[in-house]
Amino acid sequence: MFERFTEKRTLELARQTAKRLMGAQGESNAQSIAVKLIDHYEKLSNPLRLEFFDFLAQEFNPDPQQVKAVAEAYQANPSAENLVRLFHVVEPDRQELLRRINRAPKGTLAIIEMRKTLLSQLGSHPEWSAIDADMHHLLSSWFNPGFLELHEITWNSPAQLLEKIIQHESVHAIDGWDDLRRRLQPDRRCYAFFHRQLPDEPLIFVEVALVPSIATDVGVLINKKTEVGAPKTFKTAIFYSISNCQPGLKGVSLGNFLIKRVAQKLIDDIPTLKTYSTLSPIPGFTQWMDQGAQLTTFDATPAQLKRFDAAISTLRLGERKWSERLKDGWHPSSCTPEQQDALKRLCATYLMHYTQERRGDSVAKFHLANGATLFQINWAADLSKKGLQQSAGLMVNYLYELDKVEAQHEAFSKGQVITARGVSALAA
Amino acid sequence: MFERFTEKRTLELARQTAKRLMGAQGESNAQSIAVKLIDHYEKLSNPLRLEFFDFLAQEFNPDPQQVKAVAEAYQANPSAENLVRLFHVVEPDRQELLRRINRAPKGTLAIIEMRKTLLSQLGSHPEWSAIDADMHHLLSSWFNPGFLELHEITWNSPAQLLEKIIQHESVHAIDGWDDLRRRLQPDRRCYAFFHRQLPDEPLIFVEVALVPSIATDVGVLINKKTEVGAPKTFKTAIFYSISNCQPGLKGVSLGNFLIKRVAQKLIDDIPTLKTYSTLSPIPGFTQWMDQGAQLTTFDATPAQLKRFDAAISTLRLGERKWSERLKDGWHPSSCTPEQQDALKRLCATYLMHYTQERRGDSVAKFHLANGATLFQINWAADLSKKGLQQSAGLMVNYLYELDKVEAQHEAFSKGQVITARGVSALAA
Amino acid sequence: MFERFTEKRTLELARQTAKRLMGAQGESNAQSIAVKLIDHYEKLSNPLRLEFFDFLAQEFNPDPQQVKAVAEAYQANPSAENLVRLFHVVEPDRQELLRRINRAPKGTLAIIEMRKTLLSQLGSHPEWSAIDADMHHLLSSWFNPGFLELHEITWNSPAQLLEKIIQHESVHAIDGWDDLRRRLQPDRRCYAFFHRQLPDEPLIFVEVALVPSIATDVGVLINKKTEVGAPKTFKTAIFYSISNCQPGLKGVSLGNFLIKRVAQKLIDDIPTLKTYSTLSPIPGFTQWMDQGAQLTTFDATPAQLKRFDAAISTLRLGERKWSERLKDGWHPSSCTPEQQDALKRLCATYLMHYTQERRGDSVAKFHLANGATLFQINWAADLSKKGLQQSAGLMVNYLYELDKVEAQHEAFSKGQVITARGVSALAA
Amino acid sequence: MFERFTEKRTLELARQTAKRLMGAQGESNAQSIAVKLIDHYEKLSNPLRLEFFDFLAQEFNPDPQQVKAVAEAYQANPSAENLVRLFHVVEPDRQELLRRINRAPKGTLAIIEMRKTLLSQLGSHPEWSAIDADMHHLLSSWFNPGFLELHEITWNSPAQLLEKIIQHESVHAIDGWDDLRRRLQPDRRCYAFFHRQLPDEPLIFVEVALVPSIATDVGVLINKKTEVGAPKTFKTAIFYSISNCQPGLKGVSLGNFLIKRVAQKLIDDIPTLKTYSTLSPIPGFTQWMDQGAQLTTFDATPAQLKRFDAAISTLRLGERKWSERLKDGWHPSSCTPEQQDALKRLCATYLMHYTQERRGDSVAKFHLANGATLFQINWAADLSKKGLQQSAGLMVNYLYELDKVEAQHEAFSKGQVITARGVSALAA
Repeated sequence: MFERFTEKRTLELARQTAKRLMGAQGESNAQSIAVKLIDHYEKLSNPLRLEFFDFLAQEFNPDPQQVKAVAEAYQANPSAENLVRLFHVVEPDRQELLRRINRAPKGTLAIIEMRKTLLSQLGSHPEWSAIDADMHHLLSSWFNPGFLELHEITWNSPAQLLEKIIQHESVHAIDGWDDLRRRLQPDRRCYAFFHRQLPDEPLIFVEVALVPSIATDVGVLINKKTEVGAPKTFKTAIFYSISNCQPGLKGVSLGNFLIKRVAQKLIDDIPTLKTYSTLSPIPGFTQWMDQGAQLTTFDATPAQLKRFDAAISTLRLGERKWSERLKDGWHPSSCTPEQQDALKRLCATYLMHYTQERRGDSVAKFHLANGATLFQINWAADLSKKGLQQSAGLMVNYLYELDKVEAQHEAFSKGQVITARGVSALAA
Repeated sequence: MFERFTEKRTLELARQTAKRLMGAQGESNAQSIAVKLIDHYEKLSNPLRLEFFDFLAQEFNPDPQQVKAVAEAYQANPSAENLVRLFHVVEPDRQELLRRINRAPKGTLAIIEMRKTLLSQLGSHPEWSAIDADMHHLLSSWFNPGFLELHEITWNSPAQLLEKIIQHESVHAIDGWDDLRRRLQPDRRCYAFFHRQLPDEPLIFVEVALVPSIATDVGVLINKKTEVGAPKTFKTAIFYSISNCQPGLKGVSLGNFLIKRVAQKLIDDIPTLKTYSTLSPIPGFTQWMDQGAQLTTFDATPAQLKRFDAAISTLRLGERKWSERLKDGWHPSSCTPEQQDALKRLCATYLMHYTQERRGDSVAKFHLANGATLFQINWAADLSKKGLQQSAGLMVNYLYELDKVEAQHEAFSKGQVITARGVSALAA
Repeated sequence: MFERFTEKRTLELARQTAKRLMGAQGESNAQSIAVKLIDHYEKLSNPLRLEFFDFLAQEFNPDPQQVKAVAEAYQANPSAENLVRLFHVVEPDRQELLRRINRAPKGTLAIIEMRKTLLSQLGSHPEWSAIDADMHHLLSSWFNPGFLELHEITWNSPAQLLEKIIQHESVHAIDGWDDLRRRLQPDRRCYAFFHRQLPDEPLIFVEVALVPSIATDVGVLINKKTEVGAPKTFKTAIFYSISNCQPGLKGVSLGNFLIKRVAQKLIDDIPTLKTYSTLSPIPGFTQWMDQGAQLTTFDATPAQLKRFDAAISTLRLGERKWSERLKDGWHPSSCTPEQQDALKRLCATYLMHYTQERRGDSVAKFHLANGATLFQINWAADLSKKGLQQSAGLMVNYLYELDKVEAQHEAFSKGQVITARGVSALAA
Repeated sequence: MFERFTEKRTLELARQTAKRLMGAQGESNAQSIAVKLIDHYEKLSNPLRLEFFDFLAQEFNPDPQQVKAVAEAYQANPSAENLVRLFHVVEPDRQELLRRINRAPKGTLAIIEMRKTLLSQLGSHPEWSAIDADMHHLLSSWFNPGFLELHEITWNSPAQLLEKIIQHESVHAIDGWDDLRRRLQPDRRCYAFFHRQLPDEPLIFVEVALVPSIATDVGVLINKKTEVGAPKTFKTAIFYSISNCQPGLKGVSLGNFLIKRVAQKLIDDIPTLKTYSTLSPIPGFTQWMDQGAQLTTFDATPAQLKRFDAAISTLRLGERKWSERLKDGWHPSSCTPEQQDALKRLCATYLMHYTQERRGDSVAKFHLANGATLFQINWAADLSKKGLQQSAGLMVNYLYELDKVEAQHEAFSKGQVITARGVSALAA
């Protein structure tokens, strides 16, 4: 009871401090008010934080009348002066508030944490979307790739940092320190982006395997007992895992810049490397099959459609959910060549003709939008429980050719999916 | 002739690259297009840079019709969704262009240099003011005090950096390395703000003297032969010089944050310090006298006005310009007590009653807006040529009491000038 | 067969290179010959390394005739000139050889590794003792405490370094990374000595617990589930483990300097600390009892002797070895008060009256020679298998009072054992 | 009077502390006694320091009787055991005293400073030569090249360090900061050795010019207005100045290791470099001519002697001292071809046939003992006052061919001077 009362008081203090920070005192003051506001906010329990978000959502918005007036003035005379005034009126004061919070020594981290909490509830609070937009807008500006620092993670890195790598790896889980040590041997690399303001926090990291040729089986790459390769065999760099560490930075472009910076660094450091590729999961494949393998915009020839239907029929899709098949013991090793072919054919079709859909495969979207090529589909490439569940054990290589990524990105943005001949043939 | 042709081609390339950087390719690409744009721009001669500014000013503006439409929608329904759309439409694409330029390794510096050039011609090109506003907006966000690093400059700092300190000191010129060495002895301190992105460039720096009591004569402070004080005599910190190093960061608040950060650092490091004050020039004083010592809003009592007029008459203001008096050998040492008193009285009146004017003294505006107290006016405090010319040798102490600066800043923003009794008495 | 031949050739090369390194070429040459010598040596199998030691032992000794001549000259006229010549003749060339090996980039480490191998076989090769003496002499000079750097080991240290801490802890084994993490929490500290020449190699490290009062049970200190203490409870620093990492530095004084440097550092850093003590094993206690608990120089009163014999009789010493008792399930918890008292009495007598013997307890020798006080004997303080085996579960606190250690060291060097009243009473 | 008394007391304290440091307390104690000894010593005035040296010279010597006894034992049985004992007895305790002084945080520097003072008076105090030998012995071991760190000095180095470079340059004086800046431009390099224990003190440094071909005129190299060369012209590295910074390290080999380490570094960093040479002064040349140009061991043919005498006669050596000629306005530009030829001939003879003498040219000794080749004698190469005075304006190139230096060093140590054909011809 008493605690609740104290909390309510803290909420009121947080509100007042936010207003003070936006007032004349806050303008001049470097840090102390911002520090206090963060302090009050962090003392709030979760329910009261939501009330604070309501406050942020209601206050600090531009005045509709004033907006209309400056918009009309700008229409009447689109001068620089009127534009400056227009932008000044339209930009929510919330952005300035966030910039002032950011003056505090740990302000950036506080905003990231605040957004993490906000995002976790945003689904049921669409009225907060402007707060989220403001935060995203500022964080994108502050975490501009020009401000990010690329560091290699090695076995010589601080244990505290390595612990975070273990914790945040979200594609192929790291099973303790021995597993991590293997992933930091000379034939494996790990790179992360850092921001000066959060020196101990990796923002996103990528793991790379240096191997003789394009890898088709992730089990070999992540097995901690795999023998360490010799430098002279480093012909191909396989990006086999990429993990975000900061949910509060959702939507801030980091991954695409990271892959290209790392590829460039590898080119500079290891002259023997000739090929850059991923070995990637296909997280949406079986779900898409479960939903009937629909391709809304598939502009197919009759022959293609026939082969597509034949594949569906070979696999008897629609009869049972994929998870039920797995319970019954389905496994790649027990497939007939026809089944194997049918699955790969469907997968190629899914990736080529469904990725541009709104609900298309997120990993495919990411790499293809980055300008990579859909290069190869690999059978029995991920036999982990998760791999069998989400993609029937299939994995895909996206090929990065740095001199082509810009053009291919543009092509993808116009609706095209750049595909290697082998994959096209499967979907033909 | 041929050169001109090549230049025109480079300008065209710069324009096209800017458009490409804003297009789909630029979205995905980390750096290479931004690097090219900077490269093209830097190859342009000054006249063609101005043409490039025209291009920046004309393109990248929001569409007035669209602005009006979203403004009306926002007025009809000021929802979060409409606000997000409104801001998205109104924010000039130019800001995104600048953020993308900033992805290049030296992007931040390039933008600062670009703005420096732009500012030097802005007076005759008001149509560029929106470019300037966009640049200022982003630079203020990127050079947020939370992102600035305070470093002490010592005799152990790199010579390259010290050379820049010598070059940028703009208040009391540093006469070579020996002079600089004296200003870095234990009883003198120098602190600068740095930004991670420009590691070798001081942004702004302040020089501090640690002395027994409030200094009233700047000659003693900057004389390289002054004996070095013992630590036990460090009772008062005098901020005797503050210099900006980056013209391209004009208008980005740095100085007020610097003074407070340094004051806080000194409090932490040197427990004997009790008083924090400036010894500051009064750059507009004699000019104001030359112009008739007008005080547009001076709400004075008849007695005050009488004494004010008497001072003007004692000094025979209006008869000759100050520079003519100096040519005739005017010097503080030859003044009568009445003349001395009259000058100090006028100066007090000038600072107390003219600073809030648009053309008021820039240094007074800076410190009083920071929340400092107009503390003391000092006779024969700066006998350098510049000091005699701009302020008849007078200097002023602005006192910083950290526990009062917030409140005093607010009072100043409401029109009040906080003044110590001694100065008030002069203007009474 | 062929391999053996190659090895012999390498040995011959090593010998020749050693001679060349001592010749005129080696004098001038910075590194290349030294690098070659190390290279040859490291290629040798163990048996051939022993042959190389034979070579080192036979060559590079001073000439007896010449020694005698300069000794006689020095006796006839002990002038500075004659002394210089004497020292020049007597110092084995081997020392200069080692100094020249040390010029190689990894020379220091190579010598330490060489000595490690040599020490492992020295028992059966007394003819190598001069090599060992020369190595020890130089290493002591190079690893002078003035050249050692004290670094704190934290959870932020490189994983590679922490792995070495896990590996070298020899008193209370560290059971993996979780155990280590607990030992690096704020109420535990770890410090190591490093040498610039071996930046990745800890030489010796000490683990410290910060607790409210003198610890009497090591199980609590090293249990990874013990709750982390609050800073305000840090009244006593317990040195609970000290481990050497470099067998090749045997006999080079490091531990005593480490404890004093760490104590001084803790005094400076944590003002609440008032007491500095160890919680130490007594590795030789049960062995001494097994051998009849003899005290060769015990200058006891008849009453003391009577009580001593009574204790022996209470425990029925001589009937069975300690290891046999343990097999039969002996445990501190099943002892009668009389037995407990008898054991502690014997232990006190052992530490007070046997430590000065040649075969006295090594840990007691170390701390008492350091100037610590034999402060307290703790019952059931180490219930690990090793603790029960070597000291019947007893442990002892050696108290470090920094203002007394010099005098107490001197007293110890004259035969005295400084003992707190409680322990003296036990042995009375 | 009173001061003198206090001083005497401090001397006595220094003596007692030295004895205490060698006693049992000093054995165990890490630092405090050493710190006190240094403190007492540093308080002594110069005359009393000399008394302290007397004390150091008299105490701490091995006992002649004991020396004789162990020498005889070693002769009777040259076993390892006897050798260890022999060395133990013969090594002066003074060395252990110095090692214990070295435990203090600033011990190494204190010993270097002490030796500097000692060396300045050693000429009149031969009885201190054993102290000097002990210090030299230990310093040589501690400043082993394996322990030295090579750092490049650049315009980005701390001003404090650059100031020391200005101060210690002893070959071609640096005339202030602008001059120094020129010597740190991209076509000039400067490298110094540092020791971890004296991080702010350069021990020795070398200046290098990167030029198209072997330099023959030092004026061009050190003129601060010389245009900066382009990287593609860097074909030849000229070592044009090498300066010691620590008189207390006299006789400790640093310079030869420095030149070779720098040459190796340049080879690694700048692949265009093909030739490594000095442009060196000939400090003893005119003095040698003034003394009659004697060559005690010149094993010359009659023809050579005739030409040698002819040269002496052409120059009318013996008539007047060189300094008198300079006063009369002698200058290279006014010499006849015969005079020029005669001077170069004498110089070649001096360098080829006198360097092996005890009083031979110190610079020639240094480079030739290093294994360099006497490559070329340059007319009018140093027209500074000093250059005209000491070598009649002549300078010499010593060529470093890294693959030959070891063999040439050995040849020099056997009495040979390796000379290029051009120089040999001059002396033929």
